[in-house]
Amino acid sequence: MVLDIQREIFAAENRIRSHIRETILDFSLPLSKMTNTNVYLKCENLQYTGSFKVRGAFNKLLSLTSDERQQGVVTASTGNHGAAVAFGIYKLKMPGIVFVPENASTTKVDNIRNYNAKLEFFGADWLQTETHALNYAKQHNMIYVSPYNDLNVIAGQGTVALELIKQLNAIDVVLVPVGGGGLVAGIAAYLKSVSPKTQVIGCLPQNSPVMAESIKAGKIVDMETLPTLSDATAGGIEAGAITFDICKEFVDDYILVSEQEIKNAIIAIIKTQHLLIEGAAGVAVASLLKNAKQFQNKNVVIILSGANISLETLKQVIA
Amino acid sequence: MVLDIQREIFAAENRIRSHIRETILDFSLPLSKMTNTNVYLKCENLQYTGSFKVRGAFNKLLSLTSDERQQGVVTASTGNHGAAVAFGIYKLKMPGIVFVPENASTTKVDNIRNYNAKLEFFGADWLQTETHALNYAKQHNMIYVSPYNDLNVIAGQGTVALELIKQLNAIDVVLVPVGGGGLVAGIAAYLKSVSPKTQVIGCLPQNSPVMAESIKAGKIVDMETLPTLSDATAGGIEAGAITFDICKEFVDDYILVSEQEIKNAIIAIIKTQHLLIEGAAGVAVASLLKNAKQFQNKNVVIILSGANISLETLKQVIA
Repeated sequence: MVLDIQREIFAAENRIRSHIRETILDFSLPLSKMTNTNVYLKCENLQYTGSFKVRGAFNKLLSLTSDERQQGVVTASTGNHGAAVAFGIYKLKMPGIVFVPENASTTKVDNIRNYNAKLEFFGADWLQTETHALNYAKQHNMIYVSPYNDLNVIAGQGTVALELIKQLNAIDVVLVPVGGGGLVAGIAAYLKSVSPKTQVIGCLPQNSPVMAESIKAGKIVDMETLPTLSDATAGGIEAGAITFDICKEFVDDYILVSEQEIKNAIIAIIKTQHLLIEGAAGVAVASLLKNAKQFQNKNVVIILSGANISLETLKQVIA
Repeated sequence: MVLDIQREIFAAENRIRSHIRETILDFSLPLSKMTNTNVYLKCENLQYTGSFKVRGAFNKLLSLTSDERQQGVVTASTGNHGAAVAFGIYKLKMPGIVFVPENASTTKVDNIRNYNAKLEFFGADWLQTETHALNYAKQHNMIYVSPYNDLNVIAGQGTVALELIKQLNAIDVVLVPVGGGGLVAGIAAYLKSVSPKTQVIGCLPQNSPVMAESIKAGKIVDMETLPTLSDATAGGIEAGAITFDICKEFVDDYILVSEQEIKNAIIAIIKTQHLLIEGAAGVAVASLLKNAKQFQNKNVVIILSGANISLETLKQVIA
């Protein structure tokens, strides 16, 4: 399994390198002092479209056959994945549609429109939208791009780890936000093959800890979740998602954080780094601030997964 | 004159390259659509210490003789220049002191402390602090590092233009925030020598338009200024500052913006780019938003000079 994924990640690296940014790994002196660790921030908040999602999206789009590419792709998302696919379609000049629910907020729709994507409204809720998008893809012989349940997408996200290994010699711990698990699966699978001593820790909001609970239960659980500032990692995991097995094999541990801890983390990054991060990235920062004692004097990499916080949410966080 | 500065900028490039970041030049699709121009953001907000000031500071420190370097440097600033000198001293492991007024705010002092600099409090206001720092430097045979009135500092800032020329082929307009004029002097002098058709426009807050008024008057004017969100460009210009003549020769025009326009610009960057910028960078963005008609279909580079906005100011801006 690990070798398969590693090979896929190398292939992804070759495909997507010219389309994505090698984001900076920023040593933070103030956060290091605060926690008595050596803190390095992997700034995927500065990636194109403001999140790591373009890595997986581009890898998926670029791995299509020329026939598939001509037919185009379909996805359903108003979030970072939707923006990433929209950006990929636009850059690669290929056909594609992003479906969003009829009641999707203007801010989120605008974010996708920014990338000139073809946008279609359908359905009163997400389930309707997603089902429609899947059917639409089948009927029109188009490829549906999943946000995480796809080896090409996971391998794309795994290129973050490839950059990390180049950027820092001895990585003791990597803290990664976890929703569907695409990012942590790619990172963990790669790091465990080249740096087995590096601890990979999944970070989740207490309000939506689905992957952590699933690992505990030994199977993907269908559970109630609460709203969270970490909207990019919120919600359930698709039955049969391949990220589950990868996480089970390669992720060392999980840390859960509260909404207040996520808020404090976003504020800490504004104050010390003058960077905007979204809730999901805040979850990873909060996981360090909460558990600093566990990581004394270690080299800790935090994956700042994204920047896409709305002005309204930012207001609430810093109020 | 232009050749002299150009030579100094090449020398600066060689000295400082390994100590600074080549910051990204980020094409903004949303801002381009909003203004019907092609907007490129030069992200010095992502430079070490959160502003372009490290370029000039490192060039000054690295151009000292070994004797001078052993004696160390002195500066007086709680702002971006202070942080940049503190960072330089720390990185180059040389002696140096940053003087700040006794009543300097904790936030600003903390920012300098972040870089492990030797900090000394002196004086009830800036004039006292600066005078003391200058005297201290003389008495102790140390070098005083001016924030802008120094050819080495100006040449360091000019390396921004060197990167720009590499990053974008046809630059029609560059919008640069102007305080003491170190940044715009370096950028304009370089661009006019390699790309004479590129328009370099200085951007200032209406509340503190000292360089623009000085150019109009044909001499450095001593004028009342009002508080501005653009604290990094606020205040008067030292009598005899060499930036005045350079601006007079190479800067094509000036744009002044109101405090409300600066606020709106900071918000626009948060909404479209999910980046934090400080007031001075907001001045340059506001100058485009206000005068978009003047720049239709042109390639416009905006220098996002810095990120260092305090949490308190951010709250006020987005409230």
